[in-house]
Amino acid sequence: MKIQFDDKNCFAGMVGDKHGITPQEFEAGKALAEKARQRFKKLSDDQVYGFAHLPFTQDLDGILKLASELKGSYDSVCLVGIGGSALGPWAVDCALRGPHPIQGKHDASNPRLVILDNVDPMFIEAALASMNPKKTIVLVVTKSGSTAETTSTFLLVYHWLKQAVGAKKAPSRVIAITTEGKGDLDGLARKEGFPTFYIPQNVGGRFSVLTPVGLVPAALTNVDIRKMMKGAAAINALAWDADLEKNIPLRAALVHYLLLAKKKKTIQVAFPYSNRLWGMSFWFRQLWAESLGKAKNRKGKVINAGQTPIAALGATDQHSQVQLYIEGPNDKLFSIYRVNKFDTMAKIPAEKVGFESFDYLAGQSLGKLIDAECRATAAALTENQRPNCQFTIDRVDAEHVGALFQLLEFETAFAGELLDIDAFDQEGVELGKKLTYGLMGRKGFKEFKDWMAAYEAKRKSV
Amino acid sequence: MKIQFDDKNCFAGMVGDKHGITPQEFEAGKALAEKARQRFKKLSDDQVYGFAHLPFTQDLDGILKLASELKGSYDSVCLVGIGGSALGPWAVDCALRGPHPIQGKHDASNPRLVILDNVDPMFIEAALASMNPKKTIVLVVTKSGSTAETTSTFLLVYHWLKQAVGAKKAPSRVIAITTEGKGDLDGLARKEGFPTFYIPQNVGGRFSVLTPVGLVPAALTNVDIRKMMKGAAAINALAWDADLEKNIPLRAALVHYLLLAKKKKTIQVAFPYSNRLWGMSFWFRQLWAESLGKAKNRKGKVINAGQTPIAALGATDQHSQVQLYIEGPNDKLFSIYRVNKFDTMAKIPAEKVGFESFDYLAGQSLGKLIDAECRATAAALTENQRPNCQFTIDRVDAEHVGALFQLLEFETAFAGELLDIDAFDQEGVELGKKLTYGLMGRKGFKEFKDWMAAYEAKRKSV
Repeated sequence: MKIQFDDKNCFAGMVGDKHGITPQEFEAGKALAEKARQRFKKLSDDQVYGFAHLPFTQDLDGILKLASELKGSYDSVCLVGIGGSALGPWAVDCALRGPHPIQGKHDASNPRLVILDNVDPMFIEAALASMNPKKTIVLVVTKSGSTAETTSTFLLVYHWLKQAVGAKKAPSRVIAITTEGKGDLDGLARKEGFPTFYIPQNVGGRFSVLTPVGLVPAALTNVDIRKMMKGAAAINALAWDADLEKNIPLRAALVHYLLLAKKKKTIQVAFPYSNRLWGMSFWFRQLWAESLGKAKNRKGKVINAGQTPIAALGATDQHSQVQLYIEGPNDKLFSIYRVNKFDTMAKIPAEKVGFESFDYLAGQSLGKLIDAECRATAAALTENQRPNCQFTIDRVDAEHVGALFQLLEFETAFAGELLDIDAFDQEGVELGKKLTYGLMGRKGFKEFKDWMAAYEAKRKSV
Repeated sequence: MKIQFDDKNCFAGMVGDKHGITPQEFEAGKALAEKARQRFKKLSDDQVYGFAHLPFTQDLDGILKLASELKGSYDSVCLVGIGGSALGPWAVDCALRGPHPIQGKHDASNPRLVILDNVDPMFIEAALASMNPKKTIVLVVTKSGSTAETTSTFLLVYHWLKQAVGAKKAPSRVIAITTEGKGDLDGLARKEGFPTFYIPQNVGGRFSVLTPVGLVPAALTNVDIRKMMKGAAAINALAWDADLEKNIPLRAALVHYLLLAKKKKTIQVAFPYSNRLWGMSFWFRQLWAESLGKAKNRKGKVINAGQTPIAALGATDQHSQVQLYIEGPNDKLFSIYRVNKFDTMAKIPAEKVGFESFDYLAGQSLGKLIDAECRATAAALTENQRPNCQFTIDRVDAEHVGALFQLLEFETAFAGELLDIDAFDQEGVELGKKLTYGLMGRKGFKEFKDWMAAYEAKRKSV
């Protein structure tokens, strides 16, 4: 496993004092980073936050056993879940079975993953029409056990499944993933007899990709989950190190924090040069946004913290976003994800066609071109004083993908400590949820239906 | 055709003076809007910028004739292009043939579109493996005729095609879309005998979806391009109106401009509540970013203008980004895209399962749920003083999609005039391009190879 982090283009020596970290700022930051490391270590040791323990605690045997029992009986895995229950599985699928948007052929020896996250009715009906219910395993995933998008879609999907395989057989084709003893999904799973896996209480949804949330769909689609965990464990071996030269997640957290706090880089662009890592940048977008987007710090002071993440894709977005990135407001920090070795290079035929815009490329490869574009873009950003850093992973395989998840989770946790916020809650979405319950007539939420009516009346009056 | 624009939640009456437009600010803005309208009208009348004329000038008969001649001979359309040559076609495909990420079945009567934008070698090889070259029409699209990603990938794809159908037949299976008489693609197309369509000189890539760039792939995949153009033409009928109550694109431009200039909303979240419109938000992301992200205004003053666009998806991103949107920095403006009528509602079975988190949804529909979430999220954003506006389209069909393209292009052009910048160039990407040419050994670019070497040496020294 080999991941490198290069932050040279984040420093004043490359992008100037106004937009880059000065040596003095970095020196002063070291003490903050060490405090953050110690604080998070204690919270982790005390089992307040659980993700760091996952590489050593998950029941891989149990997951692989169920996967091997089901093997051959399905060509599609239909995952019903949203947010942290969908983005981790998608990131794994995109990286190791994709790349997005190519799904390729699927059959019983090479099943595909279909994720039903959104409650768009046209999307859900098109997705169901694309699967054969007799050859589908349904995963229903919600940590709380009560997420409206998931419970509603599951009712639809379970009906579709029962119609096809019968009410008696259907429960054996469903796997529930939720919190033990809490929420209605666990109750329903016990009543119906669904095989069930549990998410540890102290692991939040956005940190749950290395729990059954990510591991079960991965195992069912032939991803090597042992290797994923091996990669993640290798990150733990460096993430507790006090030496910033060795501790990549801590160093990355410090650099990102300093650029946000001292240089007002309020936007972070997650910029992989690989279609396989595109799903990962959407997964990271949730992790970073929900963890650090907080109204108050731990002392209760209103700070409206957060750095807005953007999922970009190289080289594609050079032809869409880089104009803005280079010439627009200097309010961004770029985190480039670079792949060292592609599995294939896509050689360009050597035959010349007689036109210069084509012929200089003849005999070269797309692999060489995308890497040249990655280097050129980092250089152009630097020349325009736009700070940028680079994570280089050796290959896109299960081990490196597992490592990258764990690395970015540690980075996020450390960044939360540097900002002195609770990176593990998400109070901000409560009002919207309650208003939705009110509009859908859920018992106990009439006051929110009334709130909506008052709001609509106010809109009419102003 | 019915599109409504509701900006009430952008005003001080709903979100307060600090984050909303005051009546005085809006009054003062009206004169700016009128000036912007007149300026852009003149530039359009003078044919400096061409997109506004497209609904009345494109050769739909010629495109439909070629499509009907080819009909039945292909089940896949493989588009090689990047940036404006890919995002418009993707937005159309996602809206009218998707919804993303479901591709469904495809055959000669219902062909699919495969877009090769990125030069990721693993992606390109997987995409080629998923198509049968004997049943594929290749589109090669580049306005300049020399885009490196497009020329390199086309060499590969053309080789793949010739191997399968022979060198003699291959040219009849390729369609080139480029600028007439300029660039090497037009030269190659003439030499090889590819059927060719031209992009008007005065229409930039990101404004080109209603030229052959968007129309040819749409026609080849059974999209009703006459209806798309009808919808676009309906926007022209209101976009020149001086009355801000009628001129939706001008009003939207003014509101977005005021929130950027007066309330520092440096980020715009394009937030469709529809998987079908997700591609549209990526198309818009290029349009807005490249058009408004400019170092200098027309007087040559450095202003680093621009508002950073983000593509989000409702309800999905409520479980990923809304925590940040509600509690994080109040630096965003939300443009919600709402669909009035879904083609299907996805009814939830009425049968109860005995658990409250499921049973309140029984007998309702996903269509009702997603609309409740859309309303609830807008209300929660408003309650937290986060300005948000709403475009409501009656249905997702060819007419409304064509209208939405034209509406957002007019809005962007007006916003460029309000910022007093040239919204139609993109100088910022030149250095990166030249460095790539240098690294790929293109003739005439050795100085940029040397520049890269000096940059690498500097990185080592600091």
